[in-house]
Amino acid sequence: MQVTPVSSTIAVLDADARAAAARLVERLRARVPRVHCITNSVAQAFTANVLLAAGVVPSMTIAAAEVGAMVGSADALLINLGTLDAERRAAAEVAPAAAKALARPWALDPVKVDRSPPRLAFAQGLLERGPALVRLNAGEFAALAGAAASRVEVAAAARRWRCVVALTGEADIVSDGTRTLTLHNGDALMTRVTAMGCAETALAAAALAVEPDPWLAATAALIVFGVAGERAARSSHGPGSFAVTFLDELHNLTPELIGAEARVTP
Amino acid sequence: MQVTPVSSTIAVLDADARAAAARLVERLRARVPRVHCITNSVAQAFTANVLLAAGVVPSMTIAAAEVGAMVGSADALLINLGTLDAERRAAAEVAPAAAKALARPWALDPVKVDRSPPRLAFAQGLLERGPALVRLNAGEFAALAGAAASRVEVAAAARRWRCVVALTGEADIVSDGTRTLTLHNGDALMTRVTAMGCAETALAAAALAVEPDPWLAATAALIVFGVAGERAARSSHGPGSFAVTFLDELHNLTPELIGAEARVTP
Amino acid sequence: MQVTPVSSTIAVLDADARAAAARLVERLRARVPRVHCITNSVAQAFTANVLLAAGVVPSMTIAAAEVGAMVGSADALLINLGTLDAERRAAAEVAPAAAKALARPWALDPVKVDRSPPRLAFAQGLLERGPALVRLNAGEFAALAGAAASRVEVAAAARRWRCVVALTGEADIVSDGTRTLTLHNGDALMTRVTAMGCAETALAAAALAVEPDPWLAATAALIVFGVAGERAARSSHGPGSFAVTFLDELHNLTPELIGAEARVTP
Repeated sequence: MQVTPVSSTIAVLDADARAAAARLVERLRARVPRVHCITNSVAQAFTANVLLAAGVVPSMTIAAAEVGAMVGSADALLINLGTLDAERRAAAEVAPAAAKALARPWALDPVKVDRSPPRLAFAQGLLERGPALVRLNAGEFAALAGAAASRVEVAAAARRWRCVVALTGEADIVSDGTRTLTLHNGDALMTRVTAMGCAETALAAAALAVEPDPWLAATAALIVFGVAGERAARSSHGPGSFAVTFLDELHNLTPELIGAEARVTP
Repeated sequence: MQVTPVSSTIAVLDADARAAAARLVERLRARVPRVHCITNSVAQAFTANVLLAAGVVPSMTIAAAEVGAMVGSADALLINLGTLDAERRAAAEVAPAAAKALARPWALDPVKVDRSPPRLAFAQGLLERGPALVRLNAGEFAALAGAAASRVEVAAAARRWRCVVALTGEADIVSDGTRTLTLHNGDALMTRVTAMGCAETALAAAALAVEPDPWLAATAALIVFGVAGERAARSSHGPGSFAVTFLDELHNLTPELIGAEARVTP
Repeated sequence: MQVTPVSSTIAVLDADARAAAARLVERLRARVPRVHCITNSVAQAFTANVLLAAGVVPSMTIAAAEVGAMVGSADALLINLGTLDAERRAAAEVAPAAAKALARPWALDPVKVDRSPPRLAFAQGLLERGPALVRLNAGEFAALAGAAASRVEVAAAARRWRCVVALTGEADIVSDGTRTLTLHNGDALMTRVTAMGCAETALAAAALAVEPDPWLAATAALIVFGVAGERAARSSHGPGSFAVTFLDELHNLTPELIGAEARVTP
């Protein structure tokens, strides 16, 4: 069978992403990385439970005086802007420097920047401080990138921001500016549970701790998250049982299940 | 059949309330209103999940700098005093003016004012700033109204405060000073899950966004909440499974189920 | 049958602890004590739900202006250092004096003091202000006691700190310096749900409100918590369903179940 170089490259990316996703759950359980999360108070408990279900140890303090020590004793960092109260804001200002000094990768979740001008300005400042990954939805992307969300614009933003961009929605697009894939796992019930997106970014931050290639880390984490969501939706009766079953599924995922259920396209 | 004018009026109210409750779930799913919630950190996640289960989009920031923009891009506002830390207090002071300027209806939940004198004073100040609705329990009502909770006193408070008063307990009383009904749906397990009352007020705030008559909005929301609770209790084994099933039931309610199960008396 | 004085004493302790645990659930349901919790935002909702499932009424404000009134209208106090933001820290500084003035017992949970030097210093200061009980894990114990966690060191710390020390882990050790028991109920899934330890300390604080002997209160609460966890694990499919079932089990526990399932050794 003859394949063009381009589709060959895509096939390689696809296989890489599937393999990284299949490996991710076992690597997290074996390494038990610590992730320090500066995240909004709505998302804290569910985010912690998602990380714990995946074998990760979360910490959550937002006291600026403690952030340095917490980042230092963690393997990766999450900064989520879901509620931008004064103390979280101060912590989010301190943390990137600590992460840089200690060479810890960090992920940014610019929640609802499309609905709050001061939050948008704050997120733009954080983008310049070296996140390995930004995860956002279409509305947030449009506000932050100044362009409608699309495959081409996501790749362009990744080049401009010099980090991996993960746009989530009905399908997810993950790009580092050169490599771009579309991920199709997930279920509509995921939009009916608060903090699903926040927890997804936290899992991607954990992946950064065990996978040195941030594009592979982000892709793997989003595949794992989507497969767990799709499996949970099959045995749920609504958003309440979905959230519970999601944690069970994430805890019980195997490389084989992920390999069999991952749906990835160029 | 001969009916007196009074009982005729009551029958109309009862039918209005049942019809509004039956319609509410479909109106929320069709309109997808946004509700900005300034609420306590204990209740944030469950409140967000209740709103999402009902088809409503919640936002939750308490940063005073963001409240104006968030209220402006929302359809209704909730102010809940469950934890009165400095920043929530500042947000709650700013928000009513934003709501008034933008003509957004708002609901007040004066949690535990009977146990904290500074909170009681703060709630009294908020009452004068034009909430469309106050939802509280008997202890909170007694502290705020200076009178024991009863049908007559609830109606009197509604006239005095010029808003709808929803007193919840074993039975709920909803009054705008002229129209008063008693609602009987619900289950004792609802008192064993934190933030059920807070989430109920949030659902009532969402109802204000789709039903211009605040008395009908409050009555409909409380009926829907009580029916979901009663249905959830039937298939629960304790407060843990109850909270999960409650979200599923709320998500799956139909006008027919609500119409069949609503229990309303004068 | 001949028994030595020592093993006789141990048998008495064991029987006391089992009896206190069996009684605890009914005493909490009968007395409905109030527990004021100054606890981290991650743990607030689950802690409240654990207390409610056990028949306890939680309050959670961290506003220093309200703490005095809340402690005054409560029967016991919890101070948990899980997130040491400025306002929680201020509340934790005010609360012990209120508890002392009002003769309310309080429990300290020095979460993650092993990972934050300022938090360790703060916890050391609180230890001198008269907690009835400290509940912590091995890492936290090592940081706070300056010694590796062991049966002997826990008893020594209890004497030095003049309070009950409850060290939790695969097995739990509870000591007041004189009486020491090891508790064996529980399940590994308890480490995969956020705030399980925080909620356990809160339940122990509630036990202080109904059992005047703090060693018996702590032992009973930990046995009850462990039995509920062990029972929940049997019918769970992962950490999501475990957390839900745990609340159901705690709500449904009977003295007979506790008596039959408690596993205690010297």
